Amino acid sequence: MTRAGDNPVSDAADRAARPVRLSVDAMGGDRGPSAVVDGMADMAKGNPDARFLLHGDEAVLAPLVARHGVLAGRVEIRHAADVVSMEDKPSQVMRHGKGTSMWSALAAVRDGAADVAISCGNTGALMALSMLVLRRLPGVPRPAIAILWPSRNPQGYNVMLDVGADVKAEAEDLRRFALMGTSYARNGLGIARPRIGLMNVGTEEHKGRPELHAAAELIAADAAAARFEYVGFVEGSDIPSDRVDVIVTDGFTGNVALKTAEGTATFIRSLLREAFTRTPAARIAALAARGPLGWLARRIDPRRANGGVFLGLGGTVVKSHGSADRVGVAAALELACRLARSDFSRKLALRLQPSLAAEAAPGDREDEQEGGRA
Amino acid sequence: MTRAGDNPVSDAADRAARPVRLSVDAMGGDRGPSAVVDGMADMAKGNPDARFLLHGDEAVLAPLVARHGVLAGRVEIRHAADVVSMEDKPSQVMRHGKGTSMWSALAAVRDGAADVAISCGNTGALMALSMLVLRRLPGVPRPAIAILWPSRNPQGYNVMLDVGADVKAEAEDLRRFALMGTSYARNGLGIARPRIGLMNVGTEEHKGRPELHAAAELIAADAAAARFEYVGFVEGSDIPSDRVDVIVTDGFTGNVALKTAEGTATFIRSLLREAFTRTPAARIAALAARGPLGWLARRIDPRRANGGVFLGLGGTVVKSHGSADRVGVAAALELACRLARSDFSRKLALRLQPSLAAEAAPGDREDEQEGGRA
Repeated sequence: MTRAGDNPVSDAADRAARPVRLSVDAMGGDRGPSAVVDGMADMAKGNPDARFLLHGDEAVLAPLVARHGVLAGRVEIRHAADVVSMEDKPSQVMRHGKGTSMWSALAAVRDGAADVAISCGNTGALMALSMLVLRRLPGVPRPAIAILWPSRNPQGYNVMLDVGADVKAEAEDLRRFALMGTSYARNGLGIARPRIGLMNVGTEEHKGRPELHAAAELIAADAAAARFEYVGFVEGSDIPSDRVDVIVTDGFTGNVALKTAEGTATFIRSLLREAFTRTPAARIAALAARGPLGWLARRIDPRRANGGVFLGLGGTVVKSHGSADRVGVAAALELACRLARSDFSRKLALRLQPSLAAEAAPGDREDEQEGGRA
Repeated sequence: MTRAGDNPVSDAADRAARPVRLSVDAMGGDRGPSAVVDGMADMAKGNPDARFLLHGDEAVLAPLVARHGVLAGRVEIRHAADVVSMEDKPSQVMRHGKGTSMWSALAAVRDGAADVAISCGNTGALMALSMLVLRRLPGVPRPAIAILWPSRNPQGYNVMLDVGADVKAEAEDLRRFALMGTSYARNGLGIARPRIGLMNVGTEEHKGRPELHAAAELIAADAAAARFEYVGFVEGSDIPSDRVDVIVTDGFTGNVALKTAEGTATFIRSLLREAFTRTPAARIAALAARGPLGWLARRIDPRRANGGVFLGLGGTVVKSHGSADRVGVAAALELACRLARSDFSRKLALRLQPSLAAEAAPGDREDEQEGGRA
């Protein structure tokens, strides 16, 4: 399998000249707007082509932005008086959300003023507003949320979707998740020909629910035209493995798996901390082991994999974890930037065209650019 | 909440005089019968009341048993010529399994010659044969597999069920899983009044699938009569937490969650090993950190949580991991022993009587003994 480097679209010369325009909801995260602006500044240093539309209370945001020289001339604040809170129900937000920073951030993408929207806010509300403002792509009844998970693969991460846009998925939904996951792995991780696996309770063909058997046939039939490799059923233990690049599942199972993995990692991290602090001798050993422990901490730092991507909409939305600090926000913005540079929204829409399966369909030539190099 | 100690039934004086009789399938595990017999010997040292019926090829087993003085006079070998392999399909085993060691181990429990059956063999075949030989309890269409998972709770483990007996569960099945999980937590972990949570994609009441809302009502209504506390919806991140003692879910979700947690723990363990071996300095640090690293390794050693318990049958079956070594086998046998001592099979059957909900039902007085002390 050929894999591209970290920057899958560095040869897309036509995009390089234009700045990347990110639409950032500054409000609604657990740590408030300062974590968002600090993360923007950190990310802006390494990405001189990034520009920001920042949505929220201007009186609060202007001084925060002014603190960072690196942001000078690169941020336009769009005032929005209201904030979607973590407690707001999606239905309320859909009726009354028009004056919120979240709505404003999405509207900028809809209006073509920005390439990708980013928010640390309430996931349910963000998905509901995204469907309202950006609309679903034709033929996509169920959008999906895709996340990156640390793995043994050379790219360092696997993709899993859906992790919670909807609690169920029919065989046709799972098929579309495979196509969307392919496009995301290619543009977000630079994998020319991703390996797709379908989550099940065993790898044998007879295992699992009926809709999974139907989905397996549909996905296998798409593999050649959509240029992915179908590896068959995978299990929960394969999420961090190198057997697969993209794990396809329904939003209920994916959400439980994601939170189970996070919970397990958090539990082990807390035991590791306890192991190296529980006795005076252990605390001395911790000093000697600073190097290896630091390496491990960086390798499993959940902040570096921050950013769930909403797929299947008329624009790309990156959902940062609500509790993200500046490191987490910067990671989500990096991801958004990479997707914007690769012109991901347009390529994903093409990928989901009904003409996909036809080998000589007009969409296919566009599609060849996806991922840069094969 | 009152919690009993490690030996929840030490006051069940009527049981103490009688030996605990374990029916052990010696064949079918990945490491062969010697790992099983070695594990038996390790476990027998700390449990002088344990006796064993050992099922398999007598010519192979007799010399293995003879190696261990601690087993002298405590093991009866029951010859069975055939073995269920990991590749055998449950349907084949149900038709042709009668001469296997697995069948023989289950039949001994059915015939009253042993209290609990233990096998390292093929899970699907073991569940199919268990249903055939031991039968389902009246009113239990779907048995469940319950596992212990390392947690922050004082007892060190949480219970999760179902982790794969069936790929689906209706609201009534989930209700029964809550009752079976209560009984298991009381008799296996010594928790007088377990806290039960229902797995969902969020803790808010409106989240998740319709059958979960129906199940939540049924479970909440049983709490007082069955003496458990219903804590509401829990998430994947709660599996190792101290918010809950028993996590109820369908076998598809539970299996994915279990394997995801195992995969995550394995991944982090391998990174930890890499962290302390990747440079010469790291290898020196590993020497200094031997103490804390050993403590951590013991705390997250998956072998110590070995043993899935089949619930809802006319007898208790403990499924050891197929790849269990002697440490893992000994842990599964310890668990079986604890359940046998507490007269778990009979109590679970009473717990699932239709008369359960009636406060003054005849079963209830029996039930008061469950768990020993409140």
